[in-house]
Amino acid sequence: MDHGSRGDREENDIEVEGGGHNGSFESERRKFVERMGSGTSEDHNLREPLLLKCRTNTTSQIAIVGANICPIESLDYEIVENELFKQDWRARRKVEIFQYVVLKWTLALLIGVLTGLAAVFCNFFVENIAGFKLLLINNLMLNDRHFMGFVANTSINLGLAILAAILCAYIAPAAAGSGIPEVKAYLNGIDAHSILAPSTLFVKIFGSIFGVAAGFVVGKEGPMVHTGACIANLLGQGGSKKYHLTWRWLRYFKNDRDRRDLITCGAAAGVAGAFRAPVGGVLFALEEAASWWRSALLWRTFFTTAVVAVVLRGFIEFCRSGRCGLFGQGGLIMFDVNSAKNSYSSADLLAVIFLGVIGGIFGSFYNYLVDKVHTDNADSETVKRGPIFKVLLVAAVSLLTSCCSYGLPWLSHCIPCPSYLEADRCPTVGRSGNYKNFQCPAGHYNDLASLFLNTNDDAIRNLFSSGTSKEFHLSTLLVFFVAIYCLGIITYGIAVPSGLFIPVILAGASYGRLVGNLLGALSDLDTGLFALLGAASFLGGTMRMTVSLCVILLELTNNLLMLPLVMLVLLISKTVADSFNQGVYDQIVKLKGLPYLEAHAEPYMKNLVASDVVSGPLITFSGVEKVGNIMHALHLTRHNGFPVIDEPPLTPAPELCGLVLRSHLLVLLKGKKFTKQKTMAGSDIMRRFKAHDFAKAGSGKGVKLEDLDIKEEEMEMFVDLHPITNTSPYTVVETMSLAKAAVLFRQLALRHLCVVPKTPGRPPIVGILTRHDFMPEHVLGLYPHVVNRHK
Amino acid sequence: MDHGSRGDREENDIEVEGGGHNGSFESERRKFVERMGSGTSEDHNLREPLLLKCRTNTTSQIAIVGANICPIESLDYEIVENELFKQDWRARRKVEIFQYVVLKWTLALLIGVLTGLAAVFCNFFVENIAGFKLLLINNLMLNDRHFMGFVANTSINLGLAILAAILCAYIAPAAAGSGIPEVKAYLNGIDAHSILAPSTLFVKIFGSIFGVAAGFVVGKEGPMVHTGACIANLLGQGGSKKYHLTWRWLRYFKNDRDRRDLITCGAAAGVAGAFRAPVGGVLFALEEAASWWRSALLWRTFFTTAVVAVVLRGFIEFCRSGRCGLFGQGGLIMFDVNSAKNSYSSADLLAVIFLGVIGGIFGSFYNYLVDKVHTDNADSETVKRGPIFKVLLVAAVSLLTSCCSYGLPWLSHCIPCPSYLEADRCPTVGRSGNYKNFQCPAGHYNDLASLFLNTNDDAIRNLFSSGTSKEFHLSTLLVFFVAIYCLGIITYGIAVPSGLFIPVILAGASYGRLVGNLLGALSDLDTGLFALLGAASFLGGTMRMTVSLCVILLELTNNLLMLPLVMLVLLISKTVADSFNQGVYDQIVKLKGLPYLEAHAEPYMKNLVASDVVSGPLITFSGVEKVGNIMHALHLTRHNGFPVIDEPPLTPAPELCGLVLRSHLLVLLKGKKFTKQKTMAGSDIMRRFKAHDFAKAGSGKGVKLEDLDIKEEEMEMFVDLHPITNTSPYTVVETMSLAKAAVLFRQLALRHLCVVPKTPGRPPIVGILTRHDFMPEHVLGLYPHVVNRHK
Repeated sequence: MDHGSRGDREENDIEVEGGGHNGSFESERRKFVERMGSGTSEDHNLREPLLLKCRTNTTSQIAIVGANICPIESLDYEIVENELFKQDWRARRKVEIFQYVVLKWTLALLIGVLTGLAAVFCNFFVENIAGFKLLLINNLMLNDRHFMGFVANTSINLGLAILAAILCAYIAPAAAGSGIPEVKAYLNGIDAHSILAPSTLFVKIFGSIFGVAAGFVVGKEGPMVHTGACIANLLGQGGSKKYHLTWRWLRYFKNDRDRRDLITCGAAAGVAGAFRAPVGGVLFALEEAASWWRSALLWRTFFTTAVVAVVLRGFIEFCRSGRCGLFGQGGLIMFDVNSAKNSYSSADLLAVIFLGVIGGIFGSFYNYLVDKVHTDNADSETVKRGPIFKVLLVAAVSLLTSCCSYGLPWLSHCIPCPSYLEADRCPTVGRSGNYKNFQCPAGHYNDLASLFLNTNDDAIRNLFSSGTSKEFHLSTLLVFFVAIYCLGIITYGIAVPSGLFIPVILAGASYGRLVGNLLGALSDLDTGLFALLGAASFLGGTMRMTVSLCVILLELTNNLLMLPLVMLVLLISKTVADSFNQGVYDQIVKLKGLPYLEAHAEPYMKNLVASDVVSGPLITFSGVEKVGNIMHALHLTRHNGFPVIDEPPLTPAPELCGLVLRSHLLVLLKGKKFTKQKTMAGSDIMRRFKAHDFAKAGSGKGVKLEDLDIKEEEMEMFVDLHPITNTSPYTVVETMSLAKAAVLFRQLALRHLCVVPKTPGRPPIVGILTRHDFMPEHVLGLYPHVVNRHK
Repeated sequence: MDHGSRGDREENDIEVEGGGHNGSFESERRKFVERMGSGTSEDHNLREPLLLKCRTNTTSQIAIVGANICPIESLDYEIVENELFKQDWRARRKVEIFQYVVLKWTLALLIGVLTGLAAVFCNFFVENIAGFKLLLINNLMLNDRHFMGFVANTSINLGLAILAAILCAYIAPAAAGSGIPEVKAYLNGIDAHSILAPSTLFVKIFGSIFGVAAGFVVGKEGPMVHTGACIANLLGQGGSKKYHLTWRWLRYFKNDRDRRDLITCGAAAGVAGAFRAPVGGVLFALEEAASWWRSALLWRTFFTTAVVAVVLRGFIEFCRSGRCGLFGQGGLIMFDVNSAKNSYSSADLLAVIFLGVIGGIFGSFYNYLVDKVHTDNADSETVKRGPIFKVLLVAAVSLLTSCCSYGLPWLSHCIPCPSYLEADRCPTVGRSGNYKNFQCPAGHYNDLASLFLNTNDDAIRNLFSSGTSKEFHLSTLLVFFVAIYCLGIITYGIAVPSGLFIPVILAGASYGRLVGNLLGALSDLDTGLFALLGAASFLGGTMRMTVSLCVILLELTNNLLMLPLVMLVLLISKTVADSFNQGVYDQIVKLKGLPYLEAHAEPYMKNLVASDVVSGPLITFSGVEKVGNIMHALHLTRHNGFPVIDEPPLTPAPELCGLVLRSHLLVLLKGKKFTKQKTMAGSDIMRRFKAHDFAKAGSGKGVKLEDLDIKEEEMEMFVDLHPITNTSPYTVVETMSLAKAAVLFRQLALRHLCVVPKTPGRPPIVGILTRHDFMPEHVLGLYPHVVNRHK
């Protein structure tokens, strides 16, 4: 991820900033304190930033959205919760709820249609561009113009690759890679910079088209998931202000919960679009993408994916008559694996178990290598060299890929065409087919060229084809497997949108076919089925999804009878791979430094209590606070939540009133409803603001600290914080086991958790726990011995 | 549900008892206080029962298991949490975790195999018994012995019905009805009496076989879900002590969380067994059955359902050679609905929308009627008349059903057989087929008899059959629809295991075919497809499931192309029906008086705070408490949790130490590690007990209060409660919004939530919130005005 400018960072909802910016931060603080004039007297409750300790995260600046979710069906819970708008809310409730429900379903429909169209668009262009390229090369080769073929292949690939890289490196660096880890992190509550921005959407679609057409060993499936999520985000934040596309009626969805729901739908729609698998899409969203799931979401997600399926089917119907240029049967992978066999012998099962174990090992090794390569790429050295270096790297990988795909087939021998095929099917004349002629004489084909000089989808289709056990040589499969395995790993790290599904399926299918050929004597299963099972074992070994992969494979191959074998392979390969390392998406999330909150607490957390990880002292506000103090605190820290404490004379003893959010404070200060005296002016403020003033703005669109223009005399005035205070924050007692506090924090999707003292006579709040306080790095940084104690 | 004996009630884990028992409760209390001798001096902290106020629930005695769940992967979290066994736990951790994982998967496999076998068993017997009956009647009718046919039909039905009713009324009353509401309630944390006991399992299987074979309009699908859950429970609690079937190695699963997971798997396996729909089973468990879902469960559930599918397939393969008597293609419904059409006209869509709207209305009316009938049946009047009345009611309904199924076909005219059919297919000679001869001359068939005098599965198959739009007359379909609709409603309330799926599918399919015939001029869709869509609309209107129904229907009909239409119908009918009333399972749960905890808080709860619903004063224990006080408290109340308060001189001021559970107290008291002085004797106690002593016993198997034999002098001794105290109970401040407290309670699946005071200088705990305090009846009983305030 890229380091944005100062302004960009402030636009986000930043809880912790990177340690590298301490310098500018400190100088700014000094400046501010000087401007304020009265240094020490103002400082009585503006102490050190709460989270200085946990600045371990230097790879990227990140923002925590978290979302204080409450499963109460409300339009904007966080606001309604405050006293300010209860009246307003109640009056408008019925009408708005109806509007809201209608809009919710309209949005689900829109996400489905747009994601479906995006999938159609992608497939159409990829098939046409890649198809033209392959047709040209095939024609050149048929005419024995071998060198021209090489030049054409390499130059077209290079051109497309550089185009993709330029888009990716200069316009939206966040669009590089699969996108699934980012979507997963977003749904966990991590709103990384511009990860779902309109520019990212644009680059993701076009970069993916160019990247796949350029012959890279990348898929368009992961990017499609990211695309779906971007579309959902664009709709959810009411369009894009920057590009003058906004819809007023989308204002209801300007809160974290609704946005999260929409993006879950978007991710499911992406999978459905990529694989034409509506049920698989829903299960993917449930199993892999979402961190919090509500049963209401199930139906909405399914509706979205069904819409996608309908759109895709309409498109394929439309194209069947040849109106889509070179877009043939291909593009949307839909494989025909045939297994008429209903029963398996024990030899078959042994072969499948063997396949699963080795596939799991290869899969986890793939993860290990991707992690290594990616670490090098995300290196600070590499980042410093700037975008031009990224483009050059892409060009180098493109050249390597072109050389492999054109050079390696020369190693293969020519095979005579099978006698049962007509002359127009072997060697292949059109752009795709099982039997590429390449350098061979007429009536012969080059089996390695049939895999390399095809689109990835067609290569998978060739590998999965049944009843063709003699079509590919053992050596061919071995060469192809090794080449794809290595190219896939190298390619993932570079600056093009690159899905992982296709490389893994390709490598797995060639591995499976290889094993199938080797074990042909032992087992009666079709080599095409072996290829499918090999792909399943690799997918299980890398991605560690289970049910969703199973259902996606079923929907892809449209064959329910293979369910038991696919399940067996997935179960084995996942179990084997889990004993080595994590799933590839989890690895990438970790690598990018995103503070992903696991569903379960770590065992060593049982040995700690909540107050152990609280890092004080903290900044608190009084119920009616001086404007200057608030401004000071906002300048000084990047905290997103501040506790509000009622003090005498309002209450007999200091009491925790609640929590105010930074974004609400900024809106309140901008309204300038200040008073000269320290009095409660809540009703005045309630008249000044409407509920939607406090609604969560899209990223980069809220009130910023720089927007405030507070005059010197206003600094000395007071503002009543009670109307915007959330008076029911979740709290834990300081002696609460950290593990249980973590469970509370995760299950309720909290952003702030107040820690209150156990014994009386102390200040009413001990500290605030945020996401970073539960990160293993933070906890183990404070208590390195705690893990050993546990062992 | 039945009112168990006193002893039965105590065996459960009762939080609140029915108000009707106040008399005996009071007299017992008096007796106890007299026996204790020193009335007042003992009473200093044994005040009034905490929950006297919320005794509104009189329909059944219920037990709250809830389960204090923590997503930390541990064998027995609740125990490990206590200081007592941390040492023990750590030492044994690695070995046990491995054993645990292996066992977990073994259990999933076992549940799958056993549920699959149960499904096979059920189907085999139903098909054979009902097949024999139908064959007999068909033969009698073919020979024109009409009266004998009537006698045979009625008497066989009556015999089977009485058999089923006797089993159900005398052995396991809990086995009556569908069972899905009970499973749903169990997974929500409500362990009603003997709902998953071995006797229930036995009656559910045999009662279901006899009931379905007796020709009732009931299904075996709901009972199959209950059967799966019973099997899972039996395995999960380590077998049945009562029937001397126990396995020591199942001791790891003696905790609420693991048991809940297993029963979720069991419910999914039941659906998979009933419909041969592995993916549908998983989605059913996710959407309808489970209240809490962990993503780890997805894979395990899917594994279980796949095992069920494999077992069923093996059985069908085995029976294909005719080795299973009359078990033919039928039994396990698998319909062949054909819709080669890929595109729909707008007239088709309008017809489908119309179908959905009317289907939704009929569906919600069905719920309304089921509710009415069921309320009458669950009436205290009816219950008082005893089991013999239940049997008589069943006999009456059986007679009515027999009269309908045999009498109504006489209303229908004879139809000449279609010319394209061979003579041996029309009229039907064997037991099942589309063309029953009944009273007609040769070469003719009675269409109403083809529906009535068939098993329910075959009738559905006939209605779904495609390309046969003229097969059934309009009047036939109308008569059949009305009869099935009414019989279905009457039958659900009686004392036989009765699934709701089949009646609803039957009524819906005949309704759909009726509409299809009426709209035949407008729409080109097949009438078989209309029947399927009608069934979908009724299912959506009554059960309100969506994705799972959709997938089950897809897997049943094995036709992915109908997905958009099925979804459209489900969406419409669910939406329409939701505007009238709740889903049928939710209604039944409510009717049975089970305190079901909704996933969302009610809107009016926002206007209340936690302390508003706390009903004090409460019973607390000191950290080292006098045995007599504990005995007194245990006798006096049925609370499951007691707060423990450390008082001076242990601490400077009174402090909340934590919470002890009744079951742990009983185990501790039974161990008799008492001291003469008020001293901490924790280490002594730690040596006396092992972790598994405190593991949750199966229902009715824990230590009971009567088992304790505390001598007079021991009453004056002290016992240290610290080792068994959960020192990290979840707490809320008394001013916490009730809505947010409810969310916390529900999301974390708590059983007790401690309310602590906000201001200092008061006792350290204000009260304990339990499930009943969040029930709308309780809250609205205390604050009837709060709903109006909200409007």
